[in-house]
Amino acid sequence: MPNPTAAILIIGDEILSGRTRDSNMHFLACALARAGIDLVEVRMVADRTADIIAAVTGLRARADHVFTSGGIGPTHDDITADAIAAALGVPISLREDARALLAAHYARSGTEFNEARQRMARIPDGAVLIENPVSIAPGFSIGNVHVMAGVPAVFEAMVASVLPRITGGTPLLSQSLRIMRGEGEIAAPLAALAADFPDLSFGSYPFNRDGVFGANVVVRGTDGPRVAEATARLAGLFPG
Amino acid sequence: MPNPTAAILIIGDEILSGRTRDSNMHFLACALARAGIDLVEVRMVADRTADIIAAVTGLRARADHVFTSGGIGPTHDDITADAIAAALGVPISLREDARALLAAHYARSGTEFNEARQRMARIPDGAVLIENPVSIAPGFSIGNVHVMAGVPAVFEAMVASVLPRITGGTPLLSQSLRIMRGEGEIAAPLAALAADFPDLSFGSYPFNRDGVFGANVVVRGTDGPRVAEATARLAGLFPG
Repeated sequence: MPNPTAAILIIGDEILSGRTRDSNMHFLACALARAGIDLVEVRMVADRTADIIAAVTGLRARADHVFTSGGIGPTHDDITADAIAAALGVPISLREDARALLAAHYARSGTEFNEARQRMARIPDGAVLIENPVSIAPGFSIGNVHVMAGVPAVFEAMVASVLPRITGGTPLLSQSLRIMRGEGEIAAPLAALAADFPDLSFGSYPFNRDGVFGANVVVRGTDGPRVAEATARLAGLFPG
Repeated sequence: MPNPTAAILIIGDEILSGRTRDSNMHFLACALARAGIDLVEVRMVADRTADIIAAVTGLRARADHVFTSGGIGPTHDDITADAIAAALGVPISLREDARALLAAHYARSGTEFNEARQRMARIPDGAVLIENPVSIAPGFSIGNVHVMAGVPAVFEAMVASVLPRITGGTPLLSQSLRIMRGEGEIAAPLAALAADFPDLSFGSYPFNRDGVFGANVVVRGTDGPRVAEATARLAGLFPG
């Protein structure tokens, strides 16, 4: 049986203008090669509805799976979800489970869950959400199209949860913890913890919000109780 | 008047498999932005005739100019020139001026100008050659399609000669000199020479052939006599 095929669509004005150098294509190309999936084409287009629809339509006719990067999340005009829905001919609406995830996230961080942020819960009808352990706003899979964020840390985390679903591998589970310390304080205890859990992977995604340093630490593995145990140990290391 | 538009086509199995991370897209995206040309789409495809034809045909209908990278030169199956000719519906044949350039190059370096190497002189009828000061095998422009090598040093040199032709800027002239020394010996004298010719640009492209280190040094500028003067001074610095 021939390998399954894939295509990648990178969405974003900042890529075409040269302001940002894309790294997601190369990351995913390597991950697909390791998974035995043949990447047959890549396209990069601007944040324009007509261009996204044309590219998705062309690519999903060619490849078994289409992976998109960019054009979702609060920093974008969030036209991508609508364009994907239009390309697949399905309605799009505010989705309650995605809205609840985002509402809880913004309540925890004391940030207003305004209308622009609520738009991140607009998901084409019938889609399956893709978990975003880094910054919560989910991606989604619909038909053979997997729609993911452009920020590399988020994109990479989403690839880690989508790929096993496609290849039939054991699904990867994850839990995340927000730690309000600089990465310099987190690194050594996290490395010691990782040594105690060689069956899990640990990712640290630093941020700086209003001058305060912190990181989202994501624990991933295929064994749910082990992931929960490591996350609890991590929370004990950084109380408060 | 709106800006002219451009598309980029990156050709190469090694890009899609993740073995090589493309850098030409980002280099050209930045150069186009500086030149006031809007990049509207990028595609990346494998070394497959049907895929190259489909991508070139789609992109040249969309954009004023299409720039391709990869799939020409001795290390490739050199199917690209044939695919471009097919996409544009023109014949392709061995071109005498390109053959002469290559024959002289291989005579100088004492390498057999065998049939595989002669195929690099196959150029679609009616094309204009794009100079390759680094490794001689030329690219070409036909219609609104500009076909360039994938090796970044060669691609970048070809962009430098093609872009002024498109934007109506002063054409860039170049001369190159092969210097059989390691880059460490070339760097200081070259920097001193460059300081005497601030109106010119100097590029050094190192190679290692059969264990012998050398570099092609390319001198570029808009004033022919100045380029010739600097190249002569350079030759005097590294006799033999």
